Amino acid sequence: MAGKVFTGEEVAQHNTRESCWIIVHGKVYDVSEFLPDHPGGAKIILKYAGKDATAEYEPIHPPDAITKNLPPEKQLGSVDMNTVKKVEVVIRAEDKIRQERFAQLPSLSEVLNLHDFEALARLVMNEKAWAYYSSAADDEITIRENHAAYHRIWFRPRILRNVTNVDWSTKILGIPTKLPIYITATALGKLGHPDGELNLTRAAAKYGVVQMIPTLASCSFDELVDAAAPGQSQFLQLYVNKDREITRKFVQHAEKRGIKGLFITVDAPQLGRREKDMRQKFEAEAPDEMDKNDQKADRSQGAARAISTFIDPGLCWEDIPWFKSITKMPLILKGVQCWEDALRAYDEGLAGVVLSNHGGRQLEFARSGVEVLAEVVEKLKEKRGIEFPNEKFQIFVDGGVRRATDVLKAIALGATAVGIGRPFLYAFSTYGQDGVEKILQILNDEFEMNMRLLGAPTLKDVVRDMVDASCLHQHIVSVPDDRLFYLNYESMAHAQLRVAKDAKPRL
Amino acid sequence: MAGKVFTGEEVAQHNTRESCWIIVHGKVYDVSEFLPDHPGGAKIILKYAGKDATAEYEPIHPPDAITKNLPPEKQLGSVDMNTVKKVEVVIRAEDKIRQERFAQLPSLSEVLNLHDFEALARLVMNEKAWAYYSSAADDEITIRENHAAYHRIWFRPRILRNVTNVDWSTKILGIPTKLPIYITATALGKLGHPDGELNLTRAAAKYGVVQMIPTLASCSFDELVDAAAPGQSQFLQLYVNKDREITRKFVQHAEKRGIKGLFITVDAPQLGRREKDMRQKFEAEAPDEMDKNDQKADRSQGAARAISTFIDPGLCWEDIPWFKSITKMPLILKGVQCWEDALRAYDEGLAGVVLSNHGGRQLEFARSGVEVLAEVVEKLKEKRGIEFPNEKFQIFVDGGVRRATDVLKAIALGATAVGIGRPFLYAFSTYGQDGVEKILQILNDEFEMNMRLLGAPTLKDVVRDMVDASCLHQHIVSVPDDRLFYLNYESMAHAQLRVAKDAKPRL
Amino acid sequence: MAGKVFTGEEVAQHNTRESCWIIVHGKVYDVSEFLPDHPGGAKIILKYAGKDATAEYEPIHPPDAITKNLPPEKQLGSVDMNTVKKVEVVIRAEDKIRQERFAQLPSLSEVLNLHDFEALARLVMNEKAWAYYSSAADDEITIRENHAAYHRIWFRPRILRNVTNVDWSTKILGIPTKLPIYITATALGKLGHPDGELNLTRAAAKYGVVQMIPTLASCSFDELVDAAAPGQSQFLQLYVNKDREITRKFVQHAEKRGIKGLFITVDAPQLGRREKDMRQKFEAEAPDEMDKNDQKADRSQGAARAISTFIDPGLCWEDIPWFKSITKMPLILKGVQCWEDALRAYDEGLAGVVLSNHGGRQLEFARSGVEVLAEVVEKLKEKRGIEFPNEKFQIFVDGGVRRATDVLKAIALGATAVGIGRPFLYAFSTYGQDGVEKILQILNDEFEMNMRLLGAPTLKDVVRDMVDASCLHQHIVSVPDDRLFYLNYESMAHAQLRVAKDAKPRL
Amino acid sequence: MAGKVFTGEEVAQHNTRESCWIIVHGKVYDVSEFLPDHPGGAKIILKYAGKDATAEYEPIHPPDAITKNLPPEKQLGSVDMNTVKKVEVVIRAEDKIRQERFAQLPSLSEVLNLHDFEALARLVMNEKAWAYYSSAADDEITIRENHAAYHRIWFRPRILRNVTNVDWSTKILGIPTKLPIYITATALGKLGHPDGELNLTRAAAKYGVVQMIPTLASCSFDELVDAAAPGQSQFLQLYVNKDREITRKFVQHAEKRGIKGLFITVDAPQLGRREKDMRQKFEAEAPDEMDKNDQKADRSQGAARAISTFIDPGLCWEDIPWFKSITKMPLILKGVQCWEDALRAYDEGLAGVVLSNHGGRQLEFARSGVEVLAEVVEKLKEKRGIEFPNEKFQIFVDGGVRRATDVLKAIALGATAVGIGRPFLYAFSTYGQDGVEKILQILNDEFEMNMRLLGAPTLKDVVRDMVDASCLHQHIVSVPDDRLFYLNYESMAHAQLRVAKDAKPRL
Repeated sequence: MAGKVFTGEEVAQHNTRESCWIIVHGKVYDVSEFLPDHPGGAKIILKYAGKDATAEYEPIHPPDAITKNLPPEKQLGSVDMNTVKKVEVVIRAEDKIRQERFAQLPSLSEVLNLHDFEALARLVMNEKAWAYYSSAADDEITIRENHAAYHRIWFRPRILRNVTNVDWSTKILGIPTKLPIYITATALGKLGHPDGELNLTRAAAKYGVVQMIPTLASCSFDELVDAAAPGQSQFLQLYVNKDREITRKFVQHAEKRGIKGLFITVDAPQLGRREKDMRQKFEAEAPDEMDKNDQKADRSQGAARAISTFIDPGLCWEDIPWFKSITKMPLILKGVQCWEDALRAYDEGLAGVVLSNHGGRQLEFARSGVEVLAEVVEKLKEKRGIEFPNEKFQIFVDGGVRRATDVLKAIALGATAVGIGRPFLYAFSTYGQDGVEKILQILNDEFEMNMRLLGAPTLKDVVRDMVDASCLHQHIVSVPDDRLFYLNYESMAHAQLRVAKDAKPRL
Repeated sequence: MAGKVFTGEEVAQHNTRESCWIIVHGKVYDVSEFLPDHPGGAKIILKYAGKDATAEYEPIHPPDAITKNLPPEKQLGSVDMNTVKKVEVVIRAEDKIRQERFAQLPSLSEVLNLHDFEALARLVMNEKAWAYYSSAADDEITIRENHAAYHRIWFRPRILRNVTNVDWSTKILGIPTKLPIYITATALGKLGHPDGELNLTRAAAKYGVVQMIPTLASCSFDELVDAAAPGQSQFLQLYVNKDREITRKFVQHAEKRGIKGLFITVDAPQLGRREKDMRQKFEAEAPDEMDKNDQKADRSQGAARAISTFIDPGLCWEDIPWFKSITKMPLILKGVQCWEDALRAYDEGLAGVVLSNHGGRQLEFARSGVEVLAEVVEKLKEKRGIEFPNEKFQIFVDGGVRRATDVLKAIALGATAVGIGRPFLYAFSTYGQDGVEKILQILNDEFEMNMRLLGAPTLKDVVRDMVDASCLHQHIVSVPDDRLFYLNYESMAHAQLRVAKDAKPRL
Repeated sequence: MAGKVFTGEEVAQHNTRESCWIIVHGKVYDVSEFLPDHPGGAKIILKYAGKDATAEYEPIHPPDAITKNLPPEKQLGSVDMNTVKKVEVVIRAEDKIRQERFAQLPSLSEVLNLHDFEALARLVMNEKAWAYYSSAADDEITIRENHAAYHRIWFRPRILRNVTNVDWSTKILGIPTKLPIYITATALGKLGHPDGELNLTRAAAKYGVVQMIPTLASCSFDELVDAAAPGQSQFLQLYVNKDREITRKFVQHAEKRGIKGLFITVDAPQLGRREKDMRQKFEAEAPDEMDKNDQKADRSQGAARAISTFIDPGLCWEDIPWFKSITKMPLILKGVQCWEDALRAYDEGLAGVVLSNHGGRQLEFARSGVEVLAEVVEKLKEKRGIEFPNEKFQIFVDGGVRRATDVLKAIALGATAVGIGRPFLYAFSTYGQDGVEKILQILNDEFEMNMRLLGAPTLKDVVRDMVDASCLHQHIVSVPDDRLFYLNYESMAHAQLRVAKDAKPRL
Repeated sequence: MAGKVFTGEEVAQHNTRESCWIIVHGKVYDVSEFLPDHPGGAKIILKYAGKDATAEYEPIHPPDAITKNLPPEKQLGSVDMNTVKKVEVVIRAEDKIRQERFAQLPSLSEVLNLHDFEALARLVMNEKAWAYYSSAADDEITIRENHAAYHRIWFRPRILRNVTNVDWSTKILGIPTKLPIYITATALGKLGHPDGELNLTRAAAKYGVVQMIPTLASCSFDELVDAAAPGQSQFLQLYVNKDREITRKFVQHAEKRGIKGLFITVDAPQLGRREKDMRQKFEAEAPDEMDKNDQKADRSQGAARAISTFIDPGLCWEDIPWFKSITKMPLILKGVQCWEDALRAYDEGLAGVVLSNHGGRQLEFARSGVEVLAEVVEKLKEKRGIEFPNEKFQIFVDGGVRRATDVLKAIALGATAVGIGRPFLYAFSTYGQDGVEKILQILNDEFEMNMRLLGAPTLKDVVRDMVDASCLHQHIVSVPDDRLFYLNYESMAHAQLRVAKDAKPRL
C-alpha cells in the first residue's frame, strides 16, 4: 500500500463478488476474499463494491478494523477523492422525521433526570443506533432486572445529623473523582453522535469524573487520550485478542499514554445475541430486496457480532500472570458474577472487580451486579476477613443505574463506585457534550439532596445499616392471572362530575 | 288490622310526609312515623306515598319485614286492589337493553364454567341487582383475595392409582351429599329471578346437595321448606335478632320443620358498607331530582343496610348456652376468622365452624377462609390433638370458589365441605333453575376429572400431602413500578407477516 | 418603612432588573438585590416588576415571608392602591374549564370515601396547585409504597364480642380526640382554597380532632390559632430556622398561644426534588417565551424549593437540650425512620416520634411509616422493655392512609394515632370546609363499622394479635415479564351473547 | 369386510340417524350404532352420513381409530371412489384469510427464536388446530406457570474458563444426541401440516436428536418408523389401553421396530377439559344451526376427549411388573409430579421419569416439571444417596421451554435432557420441516452462546452451583390492587418534544 493512487473510475470497475474493491477514508481495499468472513455478512459490503463505503463503515467499526483484518497486500493504495463519485445516501422518510425532531428537543433545563434522555433519544436517534444501544440478550429480562434490583433495596435514613456540608467525592483506584461514579465503556459512540466518545472525554474533564475508554470505541484510543485535559484520568476497558501480541502492544501503549487502570472484560467470550438489534436489520430492508437463495441462510446477527470476532473465548485464569507481567497498571476484572470468582480475583492479587452482567447484553438471567455485590461482600468477609469499601481490593458494579439513590445503595452495600453507561449514550445522542454534562449536574444535585436526607455528610457515612436489602435476592414471578375471574371483576369507580355521569350509559 | 277494607282512593289521600300510607301485597300500612327509621331512607317510601309499593318492596325485603317493623295499630287493613291505580313502572332505556339481552343468551351447553354465568349475568341483570350481588366491602380487595388465595395452593398429584371409579360424595353434619359443597346462604334472591331462592331448593334436590336457607331470603322460610323434595335436607343461616324471643321462635320453628343444621352468622354485627351498591343509588338518579337541602345529608347506604337493622351487635359467646338450650340442631358458627375463635367453638362443644369473611362483604382485609383453614387445622391439632376432616367438629370454608380444584384444595387442607354462593345467584339470574343445575353438572364433571388426575378414588384419599400450601400466607404488594423506566422500555416484538411490516412506519 | 406612601405610577417606574420594586398587600418592596437569591428564580419576580404581585405571591408564601427575607430598608412603605393599575390575570382556557367544573361537582352525599376527593380535586384544581400537592420525590415510588404497605397487613378479627357500643376516641399527648387521627401539617393551603388552612381548623373543632399547624401555612400562625373554637387543641409543626433566634421566638410564641405539642420536622434538612412540580413550570410556559440564554441554566425547582431555603440542614441531636430549655411543650420528632433514632428520641426524654417519610416527598425509597412502626415497637420492647401504645412515649405514623382500616392496623401495631394530610387538602380544594367535615364523617362511619367487625369495643381492644403483618417487610419487584411469551398467550374468553359472537370475526 | 365394493350411490342412501354409513379412505363403515358412543358427538358424524368423511376424519383421528372402535361386521367393504360425490369443503372467509397469510410469512432467516413460530402460527393456522394445540386445562394457569417457573431460576455464571470449544451433546438412555433435548410426543400433527409428525422425524434425523412418537399421532406408527434415517433413534410414548392385549401387541411391535425407550404416560387417566378447545366448537357454528332440543344437552368436549376414550384410568403400580415382562425396552414414567412417585419409580427399577404436567393440559395447578425436579433431586439424594444427572435413573422434564437457557437451568438442577413439544408443532404448522430444522438451528446457536457465557465447556460443567433456584417454589399471587388509589395516581411523564407539549391540553 505504498504510494499507489487510483482514480475513482478504476476502483468502480471492481464492483463484483469476484473482484470487490471498496474505499474507506480515501484508501482502497480489495475485500474479495474477505467477503465470506465479514461478521456483518457479504451483502452489506457488496452494496459498496467499487464505491466509497466510509459513511457506512465509520460508525460501526473501530478506526483500525479494516487494516487489522486485511493482509497488507489487499490494502491497495489511496484514491483521488475528487474522482470518486459521491455515494448518495438515501435517507428514508422516517429517518428524516427523526432528524427533524432534533429541532424540537426541549431546552436542557427541562430535562430533569436520566430517564428523560432515553425518552428523547428514542424519538430522535436513527433506528440502527437505537437498536444497537438499547438492545440486550434474549428476552431482555436481565437488562430490566438490573434496574429492578435496586428497587428491592430500601433506605434506613438517619436524622438529626449536621448535613450543612455534604461531600460525595471519593477515590477510584487512588484517582480522585468528584462523584462516586465513572463513565463505563460502551462501544460505537459515533452511532449516536459524530463526535462519539469524545463527548464523554470532554464532559468528564469538566465534572471531574473518570472515563473508561472502550476497546470498541468509534474514536481511536489515541484520539480519546489526546482529548484529555491536563490531569484528567482515564481507564481502559480491554477485550483480549486471540492474538495476544496485539493485546500486549495495546496494553503497553495504554500504560505509556497514562491510563490509570485496566478493566479486562471477562463476561464476553462471545458477544450476545441481541434480537432487537438483529431484527432491526430485517425491518430496515424491504422483503423484495431479499435474495431468494438466502431464504434459509443465516443473515447478519446485528452490530454486536459484526465487531467482535477477534475476542478470545479461550481467555482464562491462567492468563492472569501474563497480564501482570506486561503492565503495572491496576488490573480489574470486569464482569464477575459470583462470589467464588471475586474471591479468586482477590487471591490472585488483582486490584478489584466489576460486578456486572454487561448491561444485560450477554447471559440472560445473569443476576444484577448489585445483587451479586451483597453476596460478594458477605462471603469475602467470611472467607478472608476483609471489609468493604476496601482500598486494596475495590468492588464496582454497573447496570441499571438511573438515580443517585441507586449509587448510594451500592455504596452502602460496599461498592467503591458505580459505572454508568447507556444514559451517557442517550445524552450525547440527543444533546452532545451538553447532555453528558447535564447528567453529571443532575447527579450532583441528587447526591447533595440524598446525602442530606440519608444523614450522611460523607460517603464514609453511607454504611451497611442504612439499607434494608433483605429482599434483594427475591426473584419472584407471580402465578399467572386468572383471566376469566379478572375479566368478570367490575372495577370500582370514583364519584364523578355530573355531566360525566349523565353522558355515560352503563351497559 | 281486623276486617277494615279501604278503597284505593282513600289510601291515595295519605300521600304526604305527615300522613304516609302505602300498600304492600294488598295490605295498607301507615308508615308516617316509621319514615325517619327506614334504613333505606324516607325518600324511597315517600315516592310510593298513597300508592302500591309492592313491586319495589318485594325483591329487597324478607316477606315479613313490614309486619315485624310496624306496630299492629299501623297495620290498617286491606285494600280492594281493583280500586287501586296501577303504579306505572318506568323502565329505563338501559334496563330495556339488558332485558332484551336475555333472548341472546347462549345455549347452556356453551356455558363451560362458573365464571361464564357471572360474565353473562353482568350483561343481563338490572344494575341494582348486579350491584347488590357483586359488591363487597371498601375497596373490594378481600373479595378478590378470596379467589386469589386458592391460586397460592398447588397440587402434588399422585400417579398410577386405579381411578376407574372415583367418588366425590361425602357427609355434611351426617347428611349425605353427592358433592363436597353446599349452597350457602345469600340474601334477596328475587333481585335476580322471580322465583328467588326456590331455584336453589329445586336444583339442590335434583343434584343431591344441601341448601342453606338464608334469614334474609326473598322467599319466606316456609315456602323454601315446603318446596323441598322428600328426603331433601336443608340448613338454616341465622341472623340473631336484638329481640331474642323472635330468634327463639324462628329457631324452634326451623327445627320443627326439619332443618338439619343451624349456621349462626358471627361476622356481621353490622352489615358492611358496600360502595358499589351505595353508588348505584346515585348513578340511577338524575342529579336534578336531588333535593337541594339534601346536599350534605347522608343518603341511602344501599340494599345491605336497608335490610339489616334488626341484627344484634351484642351477640356474644355468653349467648351460646342459650342457643343450646333452645334447640337440638347442630350449631355451627359462620364467619370464624382465626384459630383462637375456632378453638373456643370446639371447646364450647359446637358442631363446627365456617371459616369465612362473608364473601368479602364485611371486614376489608379479613383473610380468606382457605388461608384461615390452614392455620386452624394446624393449631387445633397442636392444642387439642384432633385431625381434620373430623366428623365431630367439622370445618367449612366459603368465598372465592369457582372450580372443583378449589374445593379439592380445601378438602386436602382439612375442610369437610365448601360453601358456594354468588355463582348460584348469577346462574339463576341468567338461566333460572336450569342455570343452577348446570353449575352442579359442571362441578360433577370437574370433580370426576380432577379426582382422577389427583390419583384420589375417594375424598378420603385427598390428603394434606397432595397440596403445597407453603405460600398461602404470603400477602405481597409489589414495590410500585418505576413509570419513567418502563415507559422508556421498548417492548420486544415478534417476527411479523410481510404486509404488517410494510404497513407500519416505526416512529 | 415608616409612613411613606407611594403612587402606583412611582412604583411602576421601577420595572427593571436594576431597580425592581413590587407591591404585595399594599406595601412596596425593593427586591432588586434579592433577585438572585429568590428560591423561585428571578424571572417570576421580574414579571411583576413595578406591579402588584399579591395574587401570585399569596398562595405560595407564608404571610411573613417577604418581611423576614428583606432587610427593613428595602421595605419602602405603602402604596395608594387606587392608583395602582390592576394586574390583569390571564386565565388559560384549560384553567377556565377546570373552574367551570366546580359547578359540576357531585353532591357531597355521593362522595363515599377519601379517594373520591382526590379524583375530583384532580379535575377541578389548577395545575400548579395539583402539582404541588400531589407530587413526591424522584420516581414517586415511596408515596405509593406508603399506601401499598398497609395492604400487606391483614386482619385477624375476633367474633362474638358485644360490640353494641363501640368507641374510637382516644388521647394524643394527653389531649382528647374523638378519632385516633390528627390533621397533619401540609404547606400552602391557599393553593387549593382561598381560606387555606382555616378550613381545617374549623372542621377540626366541629369533629373534635387535633390540627397540626404547619410552619409553611398560607394563613398566618396567629390567624389559625385565633380561629380555634374554645377548648380546641392545636399542635405546631416546626421547620427549624438557620437563625435559631427566629425559631426560639416562634416556639415561645406558640406556647403562649396555647399550642399543645411541638412536632419538629427532622426528615427535611433540604426540601425534596419533586419532578412533577418542577415539570409543571415548563408545561405551563410556551417554549417561545423561554430565554434563549437560559437554555442551559437551571430554572425553578418548583414550589417546594421556593419556600424552604431558611430550613437549617445543620439541625442535630445536640440541639435537643436547647429545645427543652426554651419550651415546656411536649417535643416530638417528626420524620423518624428507623428504630435506632426512635430509641435515641426515647432516651433523650422526648414525648414521642412520628414515623414518617414526609408523604414520600423527601427521600425516595425511605420505608413507609407503618413498616418502620413494626420495627420500632419490637426493638424498643427488646431494648427498653416498653410496650405500645404507650402514654409516656407516643408513636405516630403518617403517609398513605385512606381508610379507617389503615388506622386500625397502625393502632394494632402500637401507634397512638395516625396523621392524615393530602386527603384533607383535596377535600377543601373541592368542597372547602364541608369537604373536610365529610372526611371526618366518613371516618367516623368506617371506624364504627370496623371496630364492630374486628370485635373491638374500644381502641384498647385493638391489639397486636388482630393483625398478620408477617409480609410487611417484603419489598418485592417481580422478574420483568417475558413479552414474547405473553404476547403469544391468547387470553381465555367467556361465553358470549349470540350477537356479540356473530359480530366478531376471529382473525 | 371381505371383497364387497359399493358404489357411491349405494352409500349415499344410508344418510340417516337410523342407517348411517360413512366413507373413510375409500372404505365403507356402518356407524349407526356407534353414533351415541362417539366421543365427538353424533352430530359431526351425521353431517357426513352417506358421504366421504375422510377430510374431516383424518387430522383428528389416529389412522386405526375407526377399525379399532367398530366391530368387524360394521366394516362393510370398500367403495369405488370414482362414483362418490366429492364433498365440497366450504372454507369460511376467515379461514381463507388465514390461508392467504401463508404467502406473507417472513423469510425463515427473520425467525429469531421459538416464540416467533407461535406468533406466526396463531396468524396462519385454522382455528380448530390452533385451539387444539394451544389450549390447556381450566383457566390455563398451569401452562403459563410452566414457562414462568424458569424465570425464577437465575444463573451464577463462571468466568475465565477456556470456552473456545463448547460441546452440548449428551446421551439419553444411552442414545447419543447432539442437543440435550428431545422432541416430545404431541398428538394430531396433521391438524397443523399435511405431513404431520413426519416433519419431526425428518428434521430429527438431520439434527441428530431423538423423536418420541406419540400414541395419538396423525401418522401411523409404522409410517414414522419407516421414515427414520439409518441409525436414527426413536422413543415411543404410550397411552395404555383398557384392553391390555392391544397394548401388549403395540409395545412388542414397537420393540421389534427398534424403538429405544418406552415412555408410559401416567398423568392422563382421563384427558383434560380444555375450554379453549371446547369453546372453539361453539364459536365455529352459527347459533341458528343449533338444535333447539339440544339446548341443555352436553355437546362436544373438543378434540381431546374425542380421541382418548380408550385410555385406561385403572392403570396402576401393580401393572409395572407386567410391562417389564413384555418388553426389554427401558421403561420411563411420563408425568411424575412429586418426589414420592419418583422414588417409587426408582425403587421399582425403572429407567427414569419425566417430570411433567402434560404441558398444562391435565391437572390445573400441578406444579411445573422444573419445580418438581428440584424437589426430586434433593429427596432422592437424601433417601437413596444418588446424584443427578444419573445414567442409571434419568430424569427428564418438559413444559414451557423456549430458550436454551431454560434447558441449561434444568440440566444444572439434575435433568438429563428436556422435552420440547408445542414449539415444534407451531414450527411445522408454519414452515413444515424447515421450521422444525430452524428451531434446532436456533437452539444450537443459543447453546453455543450460553455454554460460553456460563463458563461451561461441556454439559458436565453445568452444575448445581451455577443456578440460584432459591425462589423456585414461590407461588405468589399479589394482594389485589386498590383501584381507586391507582386510578387517582397520575403517572409521571418524561420531558417532551416541543410540538407534542403544545398540542396536548392537560385536562
